[in-house]
Amino acid sequence: MNAEIIAVGSEMLTPDKVDTNSLYITRELNTLGIEVVAKCIIGDDRARLTEAIRAAWKNSGLVILTGGLGPTEDDITRDAAAAALDVGMTPNPAAWDAILNRFQKFGRTPTENNRRQMLILDGAEMLLNPNGTAPGQWFHRDGRVLVLLPGPPRELKPMMQADIIPRLIAMLPPQVIRTRWYRVALMGESDLDQLIAPIYSKFTNPATTILAAPGDVDIHLRARCETAEEAEALLAEVGDPIRELIGDKIYSENGDSLEQVIGKLLRAKGQSVAVAESLTGGMLGQQITAVSGASDYFKGGFLTYTDEMKHQLLGVPEGTEAVSEAAALAMAQGARERTGADYALSVTGFADGDQAGHVYVGLATAGDVHARKLKLSGDRLRVRTLTVLNALDWLRRSLL
Amino acid sequence: MNAEIIAVGSEMLTPDKVDTNSLYITRELNTLGIEVVAKCIIGDDRARLTEAIRAAWKNSGLVILTGGLGPTEDDITRDAAAAALDVGMTPNPAAWDAILNRFQKFGRTPTENNRRQMLILDGAEMLLNPNGTAPGQWFHRDGRVLVLLPGPPRELKPMMQADIIPRLIAMLPPQVIRTRWYRVALMGESDLDQLIAPIYSKFTNPATTILAAPGDVDIHLRARCETAEEAEALLAEVGDPIRELIGDKIYSENGDSLEQVIGKLLRAKGQSVAVAESLTGGMLGQQITAVSGASDYFKGGFLTYTDEMKHQLLGVPEGTEAVSEAAALAMAQGARERTGADYALSVTGFADGDQAGHVYVGLATAGDVHARKLKLSGDRLRVRTLTVLNALDWLRRSLL
Repeated sequence: MNAEIIAVGSEMLTPDKVDTNSLYITRELNTLGIEVVAKCIIGDDRARLTEAIRAAWKNSGLVILTGGLGPTEDDITRDAAAAALDVGMTPNPAAWDAILNRFQKFGRTPTENNRRQMLILDGAEMLLNPNGTAPGQWFHRDGRVLVLLPGPPRELKPMMQADIIPRLIAMLPPQVIRTRWYRVALMGESDLDQLIAPIYSKFTNPATTILAAPGDVDIHLRARCETAEEAEALLAEVGDPIRELIGDKIYSENGDSLEQVIGKLLRAKGQSVAVAESLTGGMLGQQITAVSGASDYFKGGFLTYTDEMKHQLLGVPEGTEAVSEAAALAMAQGARERTGADYALSVTGFADGDQAGHVYVGLATAGDVHARKLKLSGDRLRVRTLTVLNALDWLRRSLL
Repeated sequence: MNAEIIAVGSEMLTPDKVDTNSLYITRELNTLGIEVVAKCIIGDDRARLTEAIRAAWKNSGLVILTGGLGPTEDDITRDAAAAALDVGMTPNPAAWDAILNRFQKFGRTPTENNRRQMLILDGAEMLLNPNGTAPGQWFHRDGRVLVLLPGPPRELKPMMQADIIPRLIAMLPPQVIRTRWYRVALMGESDLDQLIAPIYSKFTNPATTILAAPGDVDIHLRARCETAEEAEALLAEVGDPIRELIGDKIYSENGDSLEQVIGKLLRAKGQSVAVAESLTGGMLGQQITAVSGASDYFKGGFLTYTDEMKHQLLGVPEGTEAVSEAAALAMAQGARERTGADYALSVTGFADGDQAGHVYVGLATAGDVHARKLKLSGDRLRVRTLTVLNALDWLRRSLL
């Protein structure tokens, strides 16, 4: 079964508006094995929308419309769907009761316009909307389905979960879905893909999705089978060799972020970490403390943006070059001594200018202090982001 | 003139892919006064795409297609456009020369497939692509325009600027565009809108756009007129009363970020700032140092995530409640003394748990130290983000 998604409303056609509903719906449908083959956003133009629905209905077994179900003249989805399907509409008393109840709950009275919202396509099921006045609709004819859902995500998503997905599952051949998830630090997307594509590209089941941010790549495997055993076997067939190839660059198999992984490792050992940041100016500390409860293992840190501060706050010897191995070593050691943390990470480098991307990261532990030189490329934000990832991943490996 | 945008390619229909090209194109077209009334993403299905192009061409004066211009069988845009417009295609020697040159430059030889890329719709202008092999096309018939552009943003954007916008401007009545930009800290979007909507909503020219992030709202005014004088007069008519209403909550009128504004103020005065962060764990320092050259005025700071660190690193008296006015005052003063900065900001509070959003911010200056209590709502990230904004805006006001 293929699907098309149509979002309705001129407000969806501004330069800053992303139709996140369609992304959410696509993810849910893909999980069921339904492919989205087209999606559109149509402004408030009844004729244009009718035409778009007609084309989608002709081409695809599932058409999902979002938005345009409000009470005003501009809310054209019901009318356009009725015209495209060539069916009438009938007021639905249960829909009207729900609208009345919702208004009463907020001490208000519906207007005459709200009566439009109880109109249901002849032959469609009315779907109650627990978070808004616009009911949804499920229209099923000759094995094809057209769905109307309200536009606000907090109304749409619960209805998708409660009403649409179960009905679709009932229509589809029985299947079980199993997933694996690898998060990988510090490999470029193309390098990683080159490494693992020879494995996963031979399989359409499990489906493999790769999501990349700078220095951080997520690999999702999704197997669909008739039984859980088959699905797990397929995941092992593809996932095990991928895991072997990437090795300990995989920092998480359950979706945890790098800072969550580090937090769990530190907490399990009853150990703590501190930071000394120049280049990143607080980004490293901020990332470690993005996790709730980080005070259990994050002692604190130093932002030493000038030579004077490196010397004064961390005891980096005067005359030490600000961006050097010696500075990174002294910063890490200084931070560890001054906070009493078990581990201290340090960072110094250039984010822009001639030497942009020339970075040192230091790590001090009970008996030892080391520094590493990094050559990073990209703009200021990217250099700082990659530096933080390098520092955190080094700490993770030390904790293993 | 109304426009429709069609992106081509199944890879655009995954759950994580946002069609950023269409957002970029929409912004550019809106600036010219062209409204986008529909946009679609169509997978690799020739018949479906042909039908979509036909519908768009019938409905709108401008149709822009992006992607699907590569050399493979899957690249169906050329064929579908020819079928929809009912025109033939002819190999274009200049397009082929450009393809050959590009391959030579990289020491490679084009394949037989690349010959597809020189096919130009009969009646269309070929548009050279300086950053890729796929040429663009401009097809103009009876006052209607169909445009083919390559999908990669780094190819599409330069062609949009060099080839498409100038041709569109030549078709449109002459006009001048003038803009104003207000950036506002620490007002909710709806509060702000309630305040200024009575002014701007009476005008369609200038067009007013409001973009909101937590605690940070941008107001754009865009006037389109025949002369610059008229445009400036309209901007003054709407912009001046808005500026008056919002007052010094406007931190920038040129697009500068809050940290850029603070950086310029500090540099102009030859003064410096330091930070002492608990709750935000480095986010405040990170934001200040997001600006290139921040070492001119950012001395450094302390991340004191535990009572012990607040005492040891900043001299906060033992027994001081970690989240309290006294702590914020002592942290700010401690940071100022230990760094020698002219200003020191401090932050302590709860990002989650029962008391989430209960926050103190401190500011120490030459003669004085103050603290403010904030009651913020939202999740961990939002509380931390709003805390940083409050601290930075307080510093900005102190610097004025």
